[in-house]
Amino acid sequence: MNNTTSSNAEENNNEMVVTPWEVKGKVDYERLIKEFGTQPLTPQLLERVEKHTDKLHLQLERKIFFSHRDLDTVLDLYDKGTKFVLYTGRGPSGPVHIGHLVPWIFTLHIQQKFNTRLYFQITDDEKYLISDNADLKNTAKWSYENALDLIALGFKPQDTFIIYDTQDIDLLYDITLEVAKRITYSTARSTFGFQDSTNIGWIYWPAIQAAPCFIHKKLTGENVPALIPAAIDQDPYWRVTRDIAQKLGYYKPAQIHCRFLPGLGAGGKMSASMPETSIFTIDPPDVVKKKIWNAFTGGKGTAAEQRKTGADPTVCSIFQYYFFLFEEDTAKLAERERKCRGGEMLCGECKKDIAEKLNGFLKAHQERREKAKDVIDQYHIKR
Amino acid sequence: MNNTTSSNAEENNNEMVVTPWEVKGKVDYERLIKEFGTQPLTPQLLERVEKHTDKLHLQLERKIFFSHRDLDTVLDLYDKGTKFVLYTGRGPSGPVHIGHLVPWIFTLHIQQKFNTRLYFQITDDEKYLISDNADLKNTAKWSYENALDLIALGFKPQDTFIIYDTQDIDLLYDITLEVAKRITYSTARSTFGFQDSTNIGWIYWPAIQAAPCFIHKKLTGENVPALIPAAIDQDPYWRVTRDIAQKLGYYKPAQIHCRFLPGLGAGGKMSASMPETSIFTIDPPDVVKKKIWNAFTGGKGTAAEQRKTGADPTVCSIFQYYFFLFEEDTAKLAERERKCRGGEMLCGECKKDIAEKLNGFLKAHQERREKAKDVIDQYHIKR
Repeated sequence: MNNTTSSNAEENNNEMVVTPWEVKGKVDYERLIKEFGTQPLTPQLLERVEKHTDKLHLQLERKIFFSHRDLDTVLDLYDKGTKFVLYTGRGPSGPVHIGHLVPWIFTLHIQQKFNTRLYFQITDDEKYLISDNADLKNTAKWSYENALDLIALGFKPQDTFIIYDTQDIDLLYDITLEVAKRITYSTARSTFGFQDSTNIGWIYWPAIQAAPCFIHKKLTGENVPALIPAAIDQDPYWRVTRDIAQKLGYYKPAQIHCRFLPGLGAGGKMSASMPETSIFTIDPPDVVKKKIWNAFTGGKGTAAEQRKTGADPTVCSIFQYYFFLFEEDTAKLAERERKCRGGEMLCGECKKDIAEKLNGFLKAHQERREKAKDVIDQYHIKR
Repeated sequence: MNNTTSSNAEENNNEMVVTPWEVKGKVDYERLIKEFGTQPLTPQLLERVEKHTDKLHLQLERKIFFSHRDLDTVLDLYDKGTKFVLYTGRGPSGPVHIGHLVPWIFTLHIQQKFNTRLYFQITDDEKYLISDNADLKNTAKWSYENALDLIALGFKPQDTFIIYDTQDIDLLYDITLEVAKRITYSTARSTFGFQDSTNIGWIYWPAIQAAPCFIHKKLTGENVPALIPAAIDQDPYWRVTRDIAQKLGYYKPAQIHCRFLPGLGAGGKMSASMPETSIFTIDPPDVVKKKIWNAFTGGKGTAAEQRKTGADPTVCSIFQYYFFLFEEDTAKLAERERKCRGGEMLCGECKKDIAEKLNGFLKAHQERREKAKDVIDQYHIKR
């Protein structure tokens, strides 16, 4: 609803819109850093991270995570003995797609390297409030299903705490009150673009998303900062949360922001509301193949033409899959790009490769997802 | 904050203001019926109530309860076998004063005569959100203290369920979401007078006050209407709640509205924020005597003058105490009024009488209040 990044959207359908509820158009990440007032991840800062992680994670090396707030402060504190907690989450509006996994995979890496706790918020209340069609039964179903995907990635129950908003409101509520008391309607409206027609639940909701930033102190007595790895569309929440954190005796939550995995269509992030352009973690192999086969690439009209003039990987949704997740070897990725540009490798081959990689990944993921059903209760915060 | 009843308040300090957060000026109850769009309690309706209660309760006979919404519908349903539940509450901002007890005493009567359940909401979250000085420790303390006063009146745990908002949010939250999703900011602003500077917690809060109207179905499976006996300043909450109740599959909550017990000063309701004009249930006898001694009456400048011209009970705060609570015998009340008007009984005598009655009442109340500490847990909703 925030339209700070969508001026004149009517005039240009490809105009960038990036809000917590909508991402569309061609996303200009450099511009987002400026408009949101965040900091780029500098080589110096990446070097500091690398000291703790042996090798720089692929998603940092490739600038999939590209921006931050206070990561330097969190590292300063860590070096002096004050740990941090990780916090990220998921709005359970449907099945998880591959794009959702990107920041979770990175979060797992940071958790393992820094040996720290993760709070993972499943925002069933938000999904209910912002969608005309959602009902609470439905969001409860997807909360469960989405949690399985998180667990399947390898998070361990001893340091991973899943917060289901409607089930765990008793743990959040007093913190949400502290936060909400300090956010005026005026601030909320200008941050989130609320209107007269916005329902009052939605208006309150930023206080619910803020609460896990501060819950660690309530649960353990330790006052440490939260570091939030998430796509940059969530940044407005942290702006308001950061403004009031210190008044409440907490550290400002820090963020590290990632890009969106594009959908299989032309432009925009992968979106569950366009199922034909998203690979869901529960998709069977034939569905995956079909979606990949129909994906938008940078290819030419005919094979002959493409062999002659080459294709354009920068606009190709398939190439992004290799870049984000499925080609960890940077030399091999460069080789694939070279062959694409040179017309040496056609889209069919590239699609066949990625479909195999995807289906291999999903087979293992789906098996781990089934096993997660036996242990999911262990991730629920004990009373 | 709602200013529908406070136009031109600047021009006239005695101008009526009646909102959930402020009551001041001379309250014109006939005008409130018109402005709030409620119904007067007609003789026909009182007759219907009397059939179930043997004798009409003093507070109905004296029109202390004077207005309603859907009481007739609730009685129709009751006569056909559908019961109702009672719902009222308390904002725990400080000690309970005698004025707070008025609707609770009536509620107990209705509960006993109709053999029905009471949900009593203690709104510690609201008090925290609307007051700059309140903290959650303080509101928790007063929640406990105020619950003791309710129990001391004789409510039994088997059909009295005290809801402490911050402790019981797990029971309320899904209902508040259903409600909040259906109230736009525009509606909330026009009903409650919210402004840009209002905090987002306060804006959400009407959904929390609505939830106990509907909680009985969740706890028991029975869908029955709620009847809310409360002072009329709370009416705006029920207007918005009534508008959405049926969309959610519930009955519209019904109300029966009472007047405010005036404070011991000149005009206005008894208010805990003016402690010298309020008799608190925990006041010791000498404090009660002193407050009564300083109370505003309808008396004259000298005893000689008053003996000659009589006094005016209609403006006398002490006379209201007899009227609301401490002279149940209507003939005796009329006799006291006659003597006052005729100059036969001076204010000193009247004050001495009421101080004795008050201290007698409070002594017994304070003893029951102490005993309530042993059983207060029985009134908490079991999980």
